[in-house]
Amino acid sequence: MLKHLGTQTVYFAYPPAILSSGSVVGSKEGKGPLGELFDEVLSDDYYGEVSWEKAERKMLATSIEIALQKANLTPKEVQFLLAGDLLDQTISANFAAQKTGIPFFGLFGACATIIEGLALAAMLIDGGFASRVVVASSSHYGTAERQYRFPTEQGVQRPPSAQWTVTGAAALLVGETGAGPKITHATIGKVVSLGVKDPTDLGTVMAPAAADTMVKHFQETGQNLETYDLVVTGDLGKIGVALARELAKEKGYDLGQKHADCGLLIYAPAQDTHAGGSGCACSAVVLASYFLPALQKGTFHRLLFTGTGALLSPTLTQQGDVIPALGHAVTLTR
Amino acid sequence: MLKHLGTQTVYFAYPPAILSSGSVVGSKEGKGPLGELFDEVLSDDYYGEVSWEKAERKMLATSIEIALQKANLTPKEVQFLLAGDLLDQTISANFAAQKTGIPFFGLFGACATIIEGLALAAMLIDGGFASRVVVASSSHYGTAERQYRFPTEQGVQRPPSAQWTVTGAAALLVGETGAGPKITHATIGKVVSLGVKDPTDLGTVMAPAAADTMVKHFQETGQNLETYDLVVTGDLGKIGVALARELAKEKGYDLGQKHADCGLLIYAPAQDTHAGGSGCACSAVVLASYFLPALQKGTFHRLLFTGTGALLSPTLTQQGDVIPALGHAVTLTR
Repeated sequence: MLKHLGTQTVYFAYPPAILSSGSVVGSKEGKGPLGELFDEVLSDDYYGEVSWEKAERKMLATSIEIALQKANLTPKEVQFLLAGDLLDQTISANFAAQKTGIPFFGLFGACATIIEGLALAAMLIDGGFASRVVVASSSHYGTAERQYRFPTEQGVQRPPSAQWTVTGAAALLVGETGAGPKITHATIGKVVSLGVKDPTDLGTVMAPAAADTMVKHFQETGQNLETYDLVVTGDLGKIGVALARELAKEKGYDLGQKHADCGLLIYAPAQDTHAGGSGCACSAVVLASYFLPALQKGTFHRLLFTGTGALLSPTLTQQGDVIPALGHAVTLTR
Repeated sequence: MLKHLGTQTVYFAYPPAILSSGSVVGSKEGKGPLGELFDEVLSDDYYGEVSWEKAERKMLATSIEIALQKANLTPKEVQFLLAGDLLDQTISANFAAQKTGIPFFGLFGACATIIEGLALAAMLIDGGFASRVVVASSSHYGTAERQYRFPTEQGVQRPPSAQWTVTGAAALLVGETGAGPKITHATIGKVVSLGVKDPTDLGTVMAPAAADTMVKHFQETGQNLETYDLVVTGDLGKIGVALARELAKEKGYDLGQKHADCGLLIYAPAQDTHAGGSGCACSAVVLASYFLPALQKGTFHRLLFTGTGALLSPTLTQQGDVIPALGHAVTLTR
């Protein structure tokens, strides 16, 4: 019998656990409301390197090292690394994979990468192919802005709908056995699009994907908002949150007070990020350093965590295409 | 007990089968030695679209449709699509995923993507999470050259070490039950590098990864060349083949007459591609339309198929970095 519900959801016979995590963030993120929770905060976003790209890959490799150190493991004791990032050809992940020497599956799921990885890691473990898998993802304000929009040195005015790419990286060690929050279900997203072409309004791009995946999750698992302490989205930001709630409400799910978004948690309003945080690291570092410890402490018992990715590419923007998006969700229990 | 051998290899309790495939190639590939084997050959590499990028994603979506049609299935009867390509943010795969509406895992494994996908698909199926998964990948000479090297209109002289990016796409339908070549093992690559920085000599970049993964496969499965009819590599080309053989020989494996490379099979010498074919589509279309039918007909009974990816990125080339590479392998039996 397939461990599959409906058309997009899988469940785990022996739910894998998230055994440890590592997080590294930039200086701005360190000054935000969650600043004290991260394992390492950079004082300089170059992280002692000559380029932001090299800084990003170093953050990613460091986050993996921290997660393994906390579990008292070496890279050789892990079967697979599943990782990805926003940079063309996911260079941060490729280099972090080379540095750790762990057999590597490269992923591209934009800002949903950490959840894409968690879903796959749980399937590889519950399927009997691994006892330990590391999932990791990163982003960097400097590398993302110049690749996707404008070099930051140019000082282009950001519209109010723009989000601030989180500088950071996080790694999660997922294991067959051991203490830690469990992954019980995963709902795999379809690529959807409302027709938005504006690369400075990614909240609107991602909201339909977030709502679609959350609603499918509720329908296919037979669950509803009652059974979750909170539903969390990765990086919809102010505008995306409002639209996702509207779209979920149309389908009968009033997220209301039960919804939190990592893009709204990571920066304080005074930090002037406009619509909030975004980037692969946004959901990854907030999950690693805020939500997982909160599950362990018993602040929450059951979360639905939806990562959302705007599948933006400068090439398609230049060719006048709409920006597609997708969302993947996992259920995390104490 | 883990279905894991050594440190990089997994095996399948109930080996999944490749039930059908679809392949689409460009006009140059259609004129090559395997031309008659492909499902569709473009007469114009724009494929009726206004850009090469749109042509590439159309090829990819078409290859998926062909694979499903041959199996008499609709996209709704498939649980997951695993796909990736060479373009920044894997836009071909994202759009093909949107078009088919299949729940989607985006991959980036450069030219090893089709094998990365096959390995993961087999794990998801044997792990009990899916009964049918489509794996697909694409590349296009026009899109890849202008992204990675020079716009083709510029007429830059290509060095003899350069390979020709295959224009094409292939999709493979993998199933829990049904007739077709079986996937019995997968060896997942580590990212390795010999220090090469030249984006026009990717054979040299990929050869160490190919040799490393093949040798690990033999060591971890306790197999050797005797037990395979042929070992196949994805797109090492003339220079990479020679180097990979040298490196494997140092470890005691003389690939000799038992080794074929898709990059050397797809074009005739007179087609002036220098070191041979490359690109995500190279191994994908040759596997789909030559090796899989040959396994079904009994020409071969057991192949080791190694996809190799040069994790090249213009960003890292511009920053003076070496180009890392990785190889993933699967065992295919009749």
